[in-house]
Amino acid sequence: MKYTVYLFLLFLLPLLLFAEDGSRLWLRYKPLTGMQKEKGNTFSSIVKDERSATLDIASGELSSAWKELTGKDISSATLQDGSIVIGTTKSKNIRSLLTGKELKDLTDDGFIIRSVKKGNRNYTVITSAEERGILYGVFHFLRLVQTDSFSDNLNIVENPKYKVRILNHWDNLDRTIERGYAGYSLWKWDELPNTLSPRYDAYARANASIGINATVLNNVNATPEILTGAYLAKVKALADVFRPYGLKVYLAVNFSSPKELGGLSDSDPLNPAVNKWWNNKVKDIYKLIPDFGGFLVKANSEGLPGPQDYGRTHADGANMLADALKPYGGIVMWRAFVYNPSNEDRAKQAYSEFTPLDGQFRDNVIIQIKNGPVDFQPREPFSPLFGALRDTQEMVEFQITQEYLGFSNHLVYLSPMFKETLDSDTYSDGEGPTIAKITDGTLRSGKVTAISAVANIGEDTNWCGHHFAQANWYAFGRLAWNHRLTSEQIADEWIKMTFSNNKDFMNPVKDMMLSSRETTVDYMMPLGLHHIFAFGHHYGPEPWGDVPGARPDWMPWYYHNADSTGLGFDRTMSGSNAVSQYFPPLNNIYNDIALCPENLLLWFHHVPWDYRLKDGKTLWDGLCYKYDTGVRQVRAYQKLWDRMEEYVDGQRFREIQSKLRVQARDAVWWKDACLLYFQTFSKRPVPYDIERPVHELEDLKKIKLEMKHHN
Amino acid sequence: MKYTVYLFLLFLLPLLLFAEDGSRLWLRYKPLTGMQKEKGNTFSSIVKDERSATLDIASGELSSAWKELTGKDISSATLQDGSIVIGTTKSKNIRSLLTGKELKDLTDDGFIIRSVKKGNRNYTVITSAEERGILYGVFHFLRLVQTDSFSDNLNIVENPKYKVRILNHWDNLDRTIERGYAGYSLWKWDELPNTLSPRYDAYARANASIGINATVLNNVNATPEILTGAYLAKVKALADVFRPYGLKVYLAVNFSSPKELGGLSDSDPLNPAVNKWWNNKVKDIYKLIPDFGGFLVKANSEGLPGPQDYGRTHADGANMLADALKPYGGIVMWRAFVYNPSNEDRAKQAYSEFTPLDGQFRDNVIIQIKNGPVDFQPREPFSPLFGALRDTQEMVEFQITQEYLGFSNHLVYLSPMFKETLDSDTYSDGEGPTIAKITDGTLRSGKVTAISAVANIGEDTNWCGHHFAQANWYAFGRLAWNHRLTSEQIADEWIKMTFSNNKDFMNPVKDMMLSSRETTVDYMMPLGLHHIFAFGHHYGPEPWGDVPGARPDWMPWYYHNADSTGLGFDRTMSGSNAVSQYFPPLNNIYNDIALCPENLLLWFHHVPWDYRLKDGKTLWDGLCYKYDTGVRQVRAYQKLWDRMEEYVDGQRFREIQSKLRVQARDAVWWKDACLLYFQTFSKRPVPYDIERPVHELEDLKKIKLEMKHHN
Repeated sequence: MKYTVYLFLLFLLPLLLFAEDGSRLWLRYKPLTGMQKEKGNTFSSIVKDERSATLDIASGELSSAWKELTGKDISSATLQDGSIVIGTTKSKNIRSLLTGKELKDLTDDGFIIRSVKKGNRNYTVITSAEERGILYGVFHFLRLVQTDSFSDNLNIVENPKYKVRILNHWDNLDRTIERGYAGYSLWKWDELPNTLSPRYDAYARANASIGINATVLNNVNATPEILTGAYLAKVKALADVFRPYGLKVYLAVNFSSPKELGGLSDSDPLNPAVNKWWNNKVKDIYKLIPDFGGFLVKANSEGLPGPQDYGRTHADGANMLADALKPYGGIVMWRAFVYNPSNEDRAKQAYSEFTPLDGQFRDNVIIQIKNGPVDFQPREPFSPLFGALRDTQEMVEFQITQEYLGFSNHLVYLSPMFKETLDSDTYSDGEGPTIAKITDGTLRSGKVTAISAVANIGEDTNWCGHHFAQANWYAFGRLAWNHRLTSEQIADEWIKMTFSNNKDFMNPVKDMMLSSRETTVDYMMPLGLHHIFAFGHHYGPEPWGDVPGARPDWMPWYYHNADSTGLGFDRTMSGSNAVSQYFPPLNNIYNDIALCPENLLLWFHHVPWDYRLKDGKTLWDGLCYKYDTGVRQVRAYQKLWDRMEEYVDGQRFREIQSKLRVQARDAVWWKDACLLYFQTFSKRPVPYDIERPVHELEDLKKIKLEMKHHN
Repeated sequence: MKYTVYLFLLFLLPLLLFAEDGSRLWLRYKPLTGMQKEKGNTFSSIVKDERSATLDIASGELSSAWKELTGKDISSATLQDGSIVIGTTKSKNIRSLLTGKELKDLTDDGFIIRSVKKGNRNYTVITSAEERGILYGVFHFLRLVQTDSFSDNLNIVENPKYKVRILNHWDNLDRTIERGYAGYSLWKWDELPNTLSPRYDAYARANASIGINATVLNNVNATPEILTGAYLAKVKALADVFRPYGLKVYLAVNFSSPKELGGLSDSDPLNPAVNKWWNNKVKDIYKLIPDFGGFLVKANSEGLPGPQDYGRTHADGANMLADALKPYGGIVMWRAFVYNPSNEDRAKQAYSEFTPLDGQFRDNVIIQIKNGPVDFQPREPFSPLFGALRDTQEMVEFQITQEYLGFSNHLVYLSPMFKETLDSDTYSDGEGPTIAKITDGTLRSGKVTAISAVANIGEDTNWCGHHFAQANWYAFGRLAWNHRLTSEQIADEWIKMTFSNNKDFMNPVKDMMLSSRETTVDYMMPLGLHHIFAFGHHYGPEPWGDVPGARPDWMPWYYHNADSTGLGFDRTMSGSNAVSQYFPPLNNIYNDIALCPENLLLWFHHVPWDYRLKDGKTLWDGLCYKYDTGVRQVRAYQKLWDRMEEYVDGQRFREIQSKLRVQARDAVWWKDACLLYFQTFSKRPVPYDIERPVHELEDLKKIKLEMKHHN
């Protein structure tokens, strides 16, 4: 009997050890081997002379990681040769090992990792002015180990580019997630505050590992209910879990809360009663959560209430909230994503609304601007608001969740897209002012610097629905910390940590990741096409879409303008003149069809079907080849991935393989739908060397997916 | 107002002239041009000195064709230079233009087309011993014109290879068609005998144009009802329409008719009362239809009644019916498609049942044998019954309707498949006895020679569902007339007549047709795989199929035998020993895995996954490449067809384009389903250079099409 049990356990053991379901994200500490193991074994103990929950997490992470990496227990706190010494810049140990001058290199929650020789002993020092910075240092140190980049001669100083590195969760209180594709919300509101899911810790730890220090718990389409006492108690419970990980809680608020919740007659920001209501509410919040971060506000946008309901400006609204938060150090992130069903080109409206308000916002208000002027499309030019608000703090809002990029079904590595925005030169003051430099405080000093992204996280075991979507959470964190990292560096780190260091795996998979966003643009909407998605849920193509009674600016034809003469949105000076919102020379470049970058051609121009692209192809032919390239690329990814089977555990291999199959089918669907539909205008044949459509347009038009815009 | 009407007509005219919906089949007489027109104009009149409905049809076809071809009216019957002289071999005109010796070359309903110079006049003579033969001659002459092959120096003698060239309609009396994919039955039983659809004439004319002289109106799964007086009156009405076109009517009969219809206690063939019932019934039929052809019988097969129900043999049953028909010249076509849910390999059963009866059948009985031993699969070896019945008349049953070949959705030109059977050497008497020579009377004299095929015709405007499926009706007729025609010759004729003479169209389209059957084998069931279709309707793949309680020999696993060791049905001497039913050396060739043709490998052998094929690939890899080749070929057909747009009218172009899209999707479906399923046994990767599956096996298993086995 015993023998049988033993046998059973023997079979179970490898399963337990090697079962991979993606839940560990990039925090996988595979046993070191060879030289790496030798190096790992030179570390002997973890020493700290301060006590705090954060430091306990840091040392706990280090010691449990070391156990997994080397099998060795280094939890003894004895200072000895090989010790890892952790502490804030105030720690006596740290002060004895590093000079004050050395510590001066640190800003904010930056960290130092340094190999220090003292006498005949070697130490590794990890320190920061902030406790959470030590955590970041520890995770950075572990990352070096995971990626074969560590040594006993480290000398690293890392300071973050942004003070606030924040995730926006579009999570509703019923646990659905708007544009969420990885299951229901992590936050189990019904169970809170009494029951705390172990995933709250895991979530905070994952964020700490990539330097994310802030989170907005709830949907920007906010309900007043989040500010009730009952919900604030739940929020406090989460904040208490997150605090030791250095993760501050923020809330999205509904501008009408005073009226809806407080029973006031209105929510006019100039109404003293409204002011008072907010002041009291903020006071209540800080009583529960002393380090509460502040508010995120979507106002007067897509039907939500706002100051304009009372004839006031966005500045009036934002400043009122800012004044309430100011005494506690809280901030307001006020979204610039506003547009109305007016005759003005939707792409122009945020700029039109906000530029007149420049200089009117408090110093704890920051305007949160989506990367592009429309809405998280596969490719947009950057929003012209960046750089245009000279006396107002600005931050970028990215979208990690793939609302317009195939949900959690398509493999799309977003770092190149994030970088494309951050590295865009706005020319606001001649050549040089990139969006990164404008928002990170380099070119314009501001009290607050921040960067945000809409999270792709849900309660799926693998967090993000698609294993490769984890890379986008990771990449956002890494870029928020240091936007000068290249997409390749980030992919390199992530692949090594998440899958394998083997270069036969690394290199092809990295190539796939790096090309994947352009591939998706190719099979979805190349050459500057945008917003030709299916209505509402935004999954799949619907260039023919026309919902009776719906707003024109939610209709694909509003954006593609296909007709017998050509394709694209004329935003030139003779069109909507959106080009004028850009600084010279960009306004002229975008205005001139010959100068306009081809990947934005149909964004700015209505282009004749026979217009010659730079490679000599007509627009129609070029469009066809782009779609075809997209399809062929996804098929190439499938081949590539299937060759990787030996390097990946079975479960993740198959789950990714399966997602790639969906992506390949979807790519053909996109190609067929768009080419067959646009062909009804172009009246030209699809170039004959291209694989032919396999669908009928009429059949594709009948596809109505039973999807909501939340999970 | 008049002007408006005129304008309206002006616009309508081209539409009327050029609207092409496939209804005209290959009988399209496009205006001649250039040299062709000059030649056409040398013909001046149609002369005949006999009167009959058939001759009227012949001269009518000629004169209306000539009008379309040249715009010229040649209906005047004046004998003059350029006259076309038509008549039987008894006609005075004919006798005066051809010698008795010349006429002796004719057999059966064969015809002569000869250019004759008499004095300074040139005539074209078309004659036959049978009136319908003149019709065949006229259509042949027109075919020469349609295909640019005519001249004023013709010297053609054509005699048919088979006396009975017969279509089997699996049409039910409720107008559904078993395995019909082109709409409901042409026969409107409810309206008959009073209302006669113009399509009855059109159907008979089309058959006459390719020499088909016989038709079985109803399903072999026959109901007794067809022999009631009411139905016989309807049958008579059709027979009357068909008669002038030389088309004889046959009926499929239910062996239990005496019991079911006549109220007898049984239908035992040795029961004198049963004999009497049949004698009377046959007498009644011939009273209505003096040239009635005879019966087709499916007995003791798939649940139908038969002589074995009374302990009698197939010979007892067939002979009883033959005796009843004999006085009137009628024949019995008795089907060898019999198999029972026994332990004996289904492929062996027809042989086992019929060889012991050899020599016992009357001389007006002919055994109708499906081309292969199982059931119209994409590829089968020929049925071993061919040649094995030495003293029994044998005929082939082909299937034109694409039960196992993608219905009317897939473009599959069947002539190569028909030829593959007809040209198969049975080795029944050493090298040489092909199935063609055995069945056409060359090697074994018999009173009756016949060839049959299950029709693909329905009331769809284009007759066959797929425009290219018309080619299979055409090819069967042409091969039944002359099995020595090549598939290429037939395709050549058909394309020119149906679409275009332009070689830029002709050549690629012919290549597509000629390769299409092999392509379909590749993406459906290469290397000898068979019967892995979806249950019941047989559309799409279902290699995993397993219907609880259904007969094993209807289950895919019965045929593919996939397991961890390999794939295929072991029919060698150490397996079911089906190989022994073939004459030497075929029995040894099929038995020996090294000698067995690879396209039948898995039909005869259970082959290890790592078995090396002739090209050095393993079985598994070879299988994968075959499926992939099939997919790529269909995509190549799509490209090819799309390039043909300028040569084809819009309607047919688009309809065929649309069908090819379905075929391309289906090919991927087949490939994915079979490879993913068989991979669960082979445990080997799909070769990495092959396009990857885009479906999940589990999803494909869920596909349950709402299809019946009739339309």
